[in-house]
This record gives sequence, C-alpha cells and structure tokens, in this order.
Amino acid sequence: METTRQESFSVQTGENEWTLGRKGHNLFQHITTKPFIYAGTGHEKVEMYRGNFRIEDRLEERVALRFVKEENDELFFSAAGQEPVIKMTAEVKDQQVTLSFESLSSLYNRFWIRLQASPEEAVYGCGEQLSHFNLRGKNFPLWTSEPGVGRNKNTYVTWQADVTGMAGGDYYHTNYPQPSFISSRHYAVQVDTTCYADFNFEHPDFHELEVWGVPNRITILGGESLQDCVEKVSDFYGRNPKLPEWVNEGIMLGIQGGTQTVDEKWQRAVDEGVHVSALWVQDWQGERITSFGKRLMWNWQWDQNLYPELPAYMEKWRSRGTRFMGYINPYIAVEGALFKEAEAHGYFALNSEGDTYLVDFGEFYCGVVDFTNPEAFEWYKQVIKTYLIDFGLSGWMADFGEYLPTDVILHSGQSAMEMHNHWPVLWAKCNHEAIKEAGKLDEIVFFMRAGYAGIQEYCPLLWGGDQSVDWSVDDGIRSVIPAALSAGFSGMGVHHSDVGGYTSLHGIKRSKELLLRWAEMSAFTPVMRSHEGNRPYDCAQFDDDLETLHHFAKTTEWFRKLTDYRKHVLAEYYDKGIPVQRPLLLKDPGDEKLTDEKYSFLLGEDLLVAPVVEEGAVTRKVYLPKGEWIHVWTGDRFSQGAHEVKAEMGEPPVFYSAQSSWAKEFTSLRGD
Amino acid sequence: METTRQESFSVQTGENEWTLGRKGHNLFQHITTKPFIYAGTGHEKVEMYRGNFRIEDRLEERVALRFVKEENDELFFSAAGQEPVIKMTAEVKDQQVTLSFESLSSLYNRFWIRLQASPEEAVYGCGEQLSHFNLRGKNFPLWTSEPGVGRNKNTYVTWQADVTGMAGGDYYHTNYPQPSFISSRHYAVQVDTTCYADFNFEHPDFHELEVWGVPNRITILGGESLQDCVEKVSDFYGRNPKLPEWVNEGIMLGIQGGTQTVDEKWQRAVDEGVHVSALWVQDWQGERITSFGKRLMWNWQWDQNLYPELPAYMEKWRSRGTRFMGYINPYIAVEGALFKEAEAHGYFALNSEGDTYLVDFGEFYCGVVDFTNPEAFEWYKQVIKTYLIDFGLSGWMADFGEYLPTDVILHSGQSAMEMHNHWPVLWAKCNHEAIKEAGKLDEIVFFMRAGYAGIQEYCPLLWGGDQSVDWSVDDGIRSVIPAALSAGFSGMGVHHSDVGGYTSLHGIKRSKELLLRWAEMSAFTPVMRSHEGNRPYDCAQFDDDLETLHHFAKTTEWFRKLTDYRKHVLAEYYDKGIPVQRPLLLKDPGDEKLTDEKYSFLLGEDLLVAPVVEEGAVTRKVYLPKGEWIHVWTGDRFSQGAHEVKAEMGEPPVFYSAQSSWAKEFTSLRGD
Repeated sequence: METTRQESFSVQTGENEWTLGRKGHNLFQHITTKPFIYAGTGHEKVEMYRGNFRIEDRLEERVALRFVKEENDELFFSAAGQEPVIKMTAEVKDQQVTLSFESLSSLYNRFWIRLQASPEEAVYGCGEQLSHFNLRGKNFPLWTSEPGVGRNKNTYVTWQADVTGMAGGDYYHTNYPQPSFISSRHYAVQVDTTCYADFNFEHPDFHELEVWGVPNRITILGGESLQDCVEKVSDFYGRNPKLPEWVNEGIMLGIQGGTQTVDEKWQRAVDEGVHVSALWVQDWQGERITSFGKRLMWNWQWDQNLYPELPAYMEKWRSRGTRFMGYINPYIAVEGALFKEAEAHGYFALNSEGDTYLVDFGEFYCGVVDFTNPEAFEWYKQVIKTYLIDFGLSGWMADFGEYLPTDVILHSGQSAMEMHNHWPVLWAKCNHEAIKEAGKLDEIVFFMRAGYAGIQEYCPLLWGGDQSVDWSVDDGIRSVIPAALSAGFSGMGVHHSDVGGYTSLHGIKRSKELLLRWAEMSAFTPVMRSHEGNRPYDCAQFDDDLETLHHFAKTTEWFRKLTDYRKHVLAEYYDKGIPVQRPLLLKDPGDEKLTDEKYSFLLGEDLLVAPVVEEGAVTRKVYLPKGEWIHVWTGDRFSQGAHEVKAEMGEPPVFYSAQSSWAKEFTSLRGD
Repeated sequence: METTRQESFSVQTGENEWTLGRKGHNLFQHITTKPFIYAGTGHEKVEMYRGNFRIEDRLEERVALRFVKEENDELFFSAAGQEPVIKMTAEVKDQQVTLSFESLSSLYNRFWIRLQASPEEAVYGCGEQLSHFNLRGKNFPLWTSEPGVGRNKNTYVTWQADVTGMAGGDYYHTNYPQPSFISSRHYAVQVDTTCYADFNFEHPDFHELEVWGVPNRITILGGESLQDCVEKVSDFYGRNPKLPEWVNEGIMLGIQGGTQTVDEKWQRAVDEGVHVSALWVQDWQGERITSFGKRLMWNWQWDQNLYPELPAYMEKWRSRGTRFMGYINPYIAVEGALFKEAEAHGYFALNSEGDTYLVDFGEFYCGVVDFTNPEAFEWYKQVIKTYLIDFGLSGWMADFGEYLPTDVILHSGQSAMEMHNHWPVLWAKCNHEAIKEAGKLDEIVFFMRAGYAGIQEYCPLLWGGDQSVDWSVDDGIRSVIPAALSAGFSGMGVHHSDVGGYTSLHGIKRSKELLLRWAEMSAFTPVMRSHEGNRPYDCAQFDDDLETLHHFAKTTEWFRKLTDYRKHVLAEYYDKGIPVQRPLLLKDPGDEKLTDEKYSFLLGEDLLVAPVVEEGAVTRKVYLPKGEWIHVWTGDRFSQGAHEVKAEMGEPPVFYSAQSSWAKEFTSLRGD
C-alpha cells in the first residue's frame, strides 16, 4: 500500500483499492465491495414541449467497476472479467485534486460516481435551485430547461400546467443547473461535463453523481471553512463581469406598449418620486399577442411602428438620468428580416432533413442560431452590436438559452444532447463579446436566466427567471431567495428577480400586496428591476395608484441609499468571490438551525434581510445568527435565536450587525 | 450446435447460445450480445397508505448474464468473469415448455428476462387490467393494491386523490395483477413467482419481465390460435368453482341500513317487478361512519342491534325466492370480540416489536389474520363457517386482500414482500375451503376483487373493484369491460361489477343515467349485483323513482331471459376455459381493427354487447367482426365494419350472430 499525502488531501492506492481522504474522512473510497464508479448503458427518450423536457432512460446495464489497478500513476477501473473501462489520473495539489478521466470502452454511456458522505452532511449549489438551498435528501437532475409553472406536484397550478402543456415542473427544474456542489464538510466538487447529469444526495452514506458520458475532469477543492469553499468555487469558475455604476441609480422599470405609453409611464413614475435608472422595454422590437399573453416579435431590430421617434425619446430620458434597455434572445422568428438573412447564410441549426429546425415557442416558430458555427456566432454578435449597442441600448435581457432541441444537427458535428447544457454559456459569451468588442463593458449590462458551468465569466447578472405572480412556495416570491443563495454557491454572485414576478396563468393574478412586498425585497438585492408580467392586465402595476407609486418611490430610495454599502459588497464579490446575497449560515456554519435556512439572506456581511413572503402577514419569524442585531426600522436590539418581528408593509424585517461600520447608511433607511 | 425439436417448440444450444423457437420465430434467444437474462441488485422503498403503494427501487447494479454453458442438460448463466448466477433447465413437451430456475448466487435480487417480440405483436392478460386490454406499448407493475381513484394523472379527480391520500393510482394499478400474458403470436407465458414484478411491453423488439427474485418457473404454452391459448391458460391455472344456480334468478340487490329498511326496500323492489335473487347486505355485521363515507364494523358477526330479528326475515325473504348475502374481509377491527380472540391466540401478523401489527383502514385499525399460521387459517375458516355459513348466508363479498404491509412479521417466517401478492390467494382459499368443508359449494357464492395467480381454483366470481361513480375512462363505468376481458385472458372467466359503481369522492356523485346504463350493461354479464356506494346519499339509487325501479325490473328481466344461454356460456367456460365475457377479437384475430377493442364484448359466442359508456349518448359507435349481426331491439341486420347505432336508454347496442341457434332467446329480450 502506497500513500501520497499532500497537506490536507491524501491519496492511497493498493490492491483493488483507491482512497482520496481529507481531514480524517474519505471523500472517495474504492474497495471491491464498494466501488467508486459504476458504468452502464442507457437509452434515453427526450421529449421537449416549449422548453419543458421529459427525459426518461431505459437502463440496459449498470455494472460496478469493482477492480482497479495502477500503472504509471494511472488507475484503470474495470468490471469483473473485462478490459478496463476507465482510465483515471489524480493530480493532487495543496487544496485541489483534479481527477482526469478517459473512456477506454465504447460499451458504456452512463457513469455513476460515488463520494462518501456522512448522514448529517449538508450540500449546496447545483446552479440556481429555486426550491431548496440545502440539497441533501433529494436528487437533482441537471438539465437547463424551463423551471415550470408551480413546480410542485401537489399544487393545483402545477397540475394544470402539466396537463395543459407538460409545463408544471418539479423542485429541481431550473434554467441554470450546474454539476457542482459545496459540502458542509468543507470541500467543493466540480464535474467537468455538459452531458445530462443527476446528482443524488438522498443516501445517508454516499452521494452519487450520474453523468451520461465520461466526465472530462472532476475537481475537488478543499477549503478551511464553508466561506473559503465558496470563494474557491468562484475562483474556479471566474468572476462575473462587473455591473455598470448606473444600475445604482434606481429601478430598471419594466414597461412597454409604444413610445407614448412608455414616456407617460416614465413621467408619472419620476413625478411621483420613483428613482428610475433605466426603462426596460421588452417590446422595443415589436410584440405579438398569443393565448399565453403578450409576447415579443423576436426580430431583433427597433420596431419603428410601435416606437416612433424612439432615438429622440431615448435622448430625452437619458438627459433626465434614465437609460433605455431592450430585449433579445438567441432565436429568430420566421416572420422577420433577420430570419431570412440567417437562413440564407446557413446560420441556423438544422433538422435531420437538412432544413432549418423550427422550434415552437408558443404559437410561433423560430430558428436556432447555431453558435457552434463560428460564422453564425460572429454574425449574431454583429446583430447585437448593430441593432442593440449602436442603437444606444444600455442593456437588455438576454433571454432563453434552454431550448436547444436534442435532435438538431449542429454545424460543429457535436451532439445536441451534449451541447444542450452548454448553450446558455455560448449565448452569454456572444453577448459579452459583443459588448466587450464595442468597448462598453462598463456601460452596458445584460442579464440572463439560463446558465451552466462556465457562464460566470461572461454574464454580469443573473435573474431568477419567470416566477408565478403568487406566494407559492416553489414558484412564487420566496423561491428567488434560495435561487440567489444557490447561484451564489455556484459562482454566480450577482442575482436579482422580476419585481412582481412574471407568470399569470391558470387564474393566478398579481395582487398589489405581492408587488409591494417584492419591491421591498428587491431593494436589498444587487439590482432592482420590475416586470409587467405576461398578462399585464391580470397584474397589479407600479402605477395603478399613488400608494403603489409612493411605495416604489420609497423602496427605490432605500436602494439608492444603500449604494455605497452595496458597492462595497459587490467589491467583496469581485475581489474574493463571496456572493452579494449570502445565506445566514455563513455567519455561523456550526449552528444547525441555519443549515436549511433559505428564506432570509445577508446582503454582504452586515445586513440581514428576511423578506415578507406570506400573503397577509404583518409579522415574520426570523432566526438570527450569533451576534447582536439591530432592527433597521425601530433600532431595537435582538440577540441570536428565533424572534417573531413586526413586518408591516414598508417595514420588512431587516437587521444590521451591531458591529457594522455601515450603521449610518442603514439607519438612514428609516427616512423622516 | 445441438437441436432438440419437439413438434412446435424447438430448442437450440451452442457455444454461449440458447434459443427457444416456435413456428419460425424465436421466443427466447440468448447470444452474447443479446442476453436472455440480466441480474441486478436493488434496494426497494415501499410506502403504503390505505392500500395504496408507492414502490421505488434504487438500482445498484444490473448485469447482463452474457455467458451460458450447458452441463448435463442444465444451463448455467453468468456475467463476464463471474461464477454462474442462475441454473436453468428446460422441459420441452408438445405444446408446453417449462423453464425451471435456481439461483446460485446471493449477490442479486433483481432479474430481467427478455422475450423476443415483433413490433406488431399484441399482448393481453396480466390479471385484471382496468385501463388497457392490449398491453403493448406500456409497462405493467404487478402488485396487488388499491386500484386508485381516477387512475389517470391527467384527471383532476386523480390529482385530488393523490394529494389527499396517495390514492389516485395509475393505469396499471389493480386489485388483481398476475404475472402472465397471452401473445397474439399464439403463445402464453406464466411466471411462477409471488415477488414484485414489472412486465414491460414498451419495446418493439422484446418484452422484458422484471422480477424481484429468481422465479421458480416460467411456463410457455403454445396454442393453435388465440382462443386455444386462452383455453390453455385456464387449464394451466384451473377453473373457477361453479356459480350456484340461484344467481340466475335476478339481481343481488345491494342494500343496507337495518332490518326494517332492508325489508322495505326489498318489498318495494319486488312490488315494482325487480327480480331479486338475493339481498346483499354489507352492514349485517355493523357499520361506522368515517369521513370517507359509510364503512362497516369489521367484526364478522351478526349485529343484532342493527339487524333485529334477522333470521326470521331471512326466512321470509327466502320463502319469496330471495336469499341473504353478507360481507367479510381478512382483517379484524380492534373494537370487536373477534379481535380479542384472535389476539389471545396469536393469530395476527406481528410488527417488528412482536406486537399485533395494526393496519390503518381509514380512521380505524385492524389486525391482519396471519394465513401463514395454519392454526390462524383454520380459525378464520371456522369464523366463516360459524358466523356466515351456519348463520345462513348464501354468499358474501370476500373483500380486500391487497393490504398486507411489507414489514409485517409472518408466522411462517416468509418475507411479507414475497407474500404480499400471494395473500389474495390464501384469502380465496380460506373462503373456498370453508364452504367446501360445509358441503355448500353448490349453494354459496363469494366474490372477490383481489387476486393473483392461483386464485382461479378457489374464487368462483371476480368483481371489478371500486369504480368511481362516473364516466371517466380509467375508473368509471367503461373500465370494467377491459377488466373482464383481461381477467378472462388470465384464467378468471367469471366477472361482474357493482351496478352503479362505488366511489363518490372529490365531488363525484352518481347520476341516475349512470346507474341505469350500468344496470343495462350488467344484464349481459354473469352476475348482476348493485351497490349503494360509499356515500349512498351522493348516489342515485334503484328506488329513487318509479322510472329507475322499472328500469331495474326490465334489465333483471333480460338477465332472467338469458339464463339458458348464459348457463350454456358458463358451461363453455367450466368445460373449456373460454371466459364468459370475451373480446370481439376472438371472432376474427386477423382483423387489426379488433386488436385494441376494449369497450365492447361478446357474451359467449353469439351475443355482442356494446354498452353505452358515455354520458348523454343516444348513439354508439360499434365495430362488428366478420359475420352477420342482428340488432336485438330492432331486428336490423348489420355486416362487418363500423356502424353508429341508436342507443336510447333501455336499448343498448346488443347484437346476435345471424347464425346463432339462440335467436329465440335473444329476440325474447325485445319484450312486448
């Protein structure tokens, strides 16, 4: 038996044994009766309906690779009586182990890798998870898709969405999955693959990582603390590009409906004291009405009919401190001029007959710009530069990215099944490079909902996707908090959500109360931005009445007053990788009352935010970590433990650390 | 290569090859790249809530047993580099092959056996299947359980039942599963096991039979025709004991509520011309009210408070040609005298602490009589003899049998996981032997909903279980037709259902129309019997008005008029095993329009019944097999093909063969 010890990690190999240990416990332990890898053969069945996927696997074989032999520092894993299936090399550095894999057999297309676990261990990450922060006890299929409407098979809305369009989703559906996690035992795992994966944290004694293809690498990072792991994960993936300064000036106000309407709404907002950093106008490039609600034209050029004199108005708004933002996504509707241009050049992904593959986006069809074709990629960057940047947009929603069908034919010859998860990264890269090449990285911001490992270095801002405009646990207002926390533990440190949510379906309508509570919460996130919703007429809007307008005025004022602190917190992320919104857990990882806490968060080190996420609530239960905490609105002092605090509209539970050097900024929120 | 040819079956063995062929196609074909058996290791998780099971399997391994070697006429199957896992011997007779299996390894607890299939092949059977008759294209888990309320994840009722009690069910849930099927390629397969199984007919090229344990035997029967296969399956399992003659005299009228109420309802029925063969009185042993509705006392003795003077009334009714029937099941409620007696003698199955295992039956608890304890089995027979037979019951519903929890400790030491499916057989045997030992086989009938392979020789009559009192596809009136057909292809040739259905939950109420249509249909089944439903006040009843009473009078008159023909059809079953209700397919197996037909049936050879199973319908589409068919009500002649025929209330589409020698009986149905 041979032992390699590298500070914290230690590797042992022996006769049919291989162990990677750290700090007294084993991360990986291969012995004949408890193999480290299983290999198998599966036949997948993938159905997609409007971004919702049903993925089934018929498993033919699943074989334990019980035997390992070492040769020249390479490990060869095999099943009984078979040639080796996998070659692995382990590179052990101080606080990082990289396992590199190579497939030696074409027999298998499914792989399961086991890590040793302890029953009380908690795990976090897997991209942006909307239902759970601590992922232990469940499995998480990792496949970028629509997150679903309802996302809980026990709710009537979910059932309706499932029955009417396969669209209900479940707890694990997300726009932004990622094959990585952080363990409470102070290590982080990154699996380098874009294949369909399913990370299973159900078993008390092991984690099992299923991947539909041999991963290229698995990187294990060791940390001194949970926060150290979070920072190392961010180092590993790279930081998000920085937000421009101007986002601090107020809310990105989501309005639409043509030049006059936008101008009138903007004027009213400004007149009533709402701080508007930008008008975010989705339908700048046209609109269409479908049974789902209001949709956009998906031809990424200024719609001069809907927006006459837009350049002049943009100038006027800008002169008053308000920028103009638009919308784009990586698909092009068949009706527009861009479609013809792309098709003529062969820039679209193809179907098996060699024709442009058309994807149903809900009563209209689009081509998929084939980002594996360098010319198409460059052309689409040019579209962004010409029609968005040169036109004067200060930013946009870079929507979608999850809809790559698994049966398209790609220019590169790569399998769509393997490229599906990578698509959001290519889409982020396309946006980023367009802005970078235009020299406007410090002026323009785009934001995405889709993601995958690798998006971190391209996308400056994540948004939580399309919540239902309700209070539901898995799809309503509260779901964006675990979303921010899990994304932050996955290297995406800057998150926000649609103020008011988005989806009105199956009878859900946005109440004024929900809209106001969402605005309160968003004042404590990196960016404030509102959305009219897919059915604006079914949703309370910021300008419905003076009370709402003044609530927006107040909360955008909070947001402005927190600018210096927020910039300090953002700097902590850009410097060290600590996410802007952080779980309370980071304050005291030993406090098991915080292990699963997912509906409150820290904005930076000093500000604790417990948004009101229940309808009709005027109090909220809060569990405060160790230390002394000062209630922002009353100045009352609270100590560690559970408290039920007042939470009237306009005074959501927010506390700052008694030790904070930012107390003046925080007390300034109290107003007059 | 060695070949054994036995008339129609042929067996070939060779180097790593084994083939069982018949009539030019292979049933089993083992070659290294297409193994016949896979072995694996699974860890099941079984949850039960009131007879509804959630069964999940975490699969550790699934290994192809690619290698086979022959030694002394025994075949040894093994995976690469391993000792043999399974020993198999094949006994080949004229039209029957018996494969006997023996496990040689304790490594594996899951087995998958593949049969070669052709894409167009149809398969039938698997016990009583309520949603499908042709099972091709789906998988069928085989586990006796509640069938579910709604049984279709796309219906709101199913969703409600799932959310409120895990009770929605799905297309494959059934009280009576059976690991057997008949193929349109004229062979039948019986797997001798009581383990959890899942027969998968999804793949175009093979069927895969999953069994959670090595089966003892697999018997393949070859037939000259589909009907020949049906007969051989019945020969294999044995015939149902015969129905007593008196069941032909009219309906078993399901009423309850105490002596006076029953007597009044009976009098009214008889006065209005309803032919009543028996009063079927569930609550003869007491009742209780739960949130589900009216439930019974589950202490299997005459309730003298609810039924004062019952013996005298039984005599009075009998003198007017009406017998008295009751109800029993294999569980005993904690409140009654029988519970104390059974517990004192140790007749109940135990929990892991050695105490009586109490099962929740819906707001009350019961012990499970341990039929693996010969003394308990004898005692329960004695209970039946003393309190049911000697008391003078002419029959009863022998309810339940599906609720054996998988974690009970049984007297025999057998695993409850393996005995669960066998429980209905023991329950049927207990009833049968009690009647047989009392010498009353030709006088007493009991009927069951639960079943499994082996029940055939004990249970004289199956009923379709608890349908919802509605028109739903998977759980309403129509579902009892595929139920009868699939049971018939599984050796249970005598089927009937609750006239009117049973379950009123989640807002479902029984309409008068449904009740009348069900009575119409049941006149053409072996037995007519009505049920008040679980919530009688939510259900139309036979005595709600004169129109309903007269409809019952008319349909029971039909039933009586068909007595001679029905006895002839029953004799065909008792002699040859051809089920009483038969699929139209048997008339012309080559007509692919009949392959999937499941909502019409033949009563015997000559009468074709297409019940009205749609609300508000006054016509029905019927596809008639080859031959000439005469419409019973009008005498109109129809030829092979699709027809839309009139189907007013009281005249459901029923046709008889123009060649029939029973024309007189059939035309007599027309009345005056």
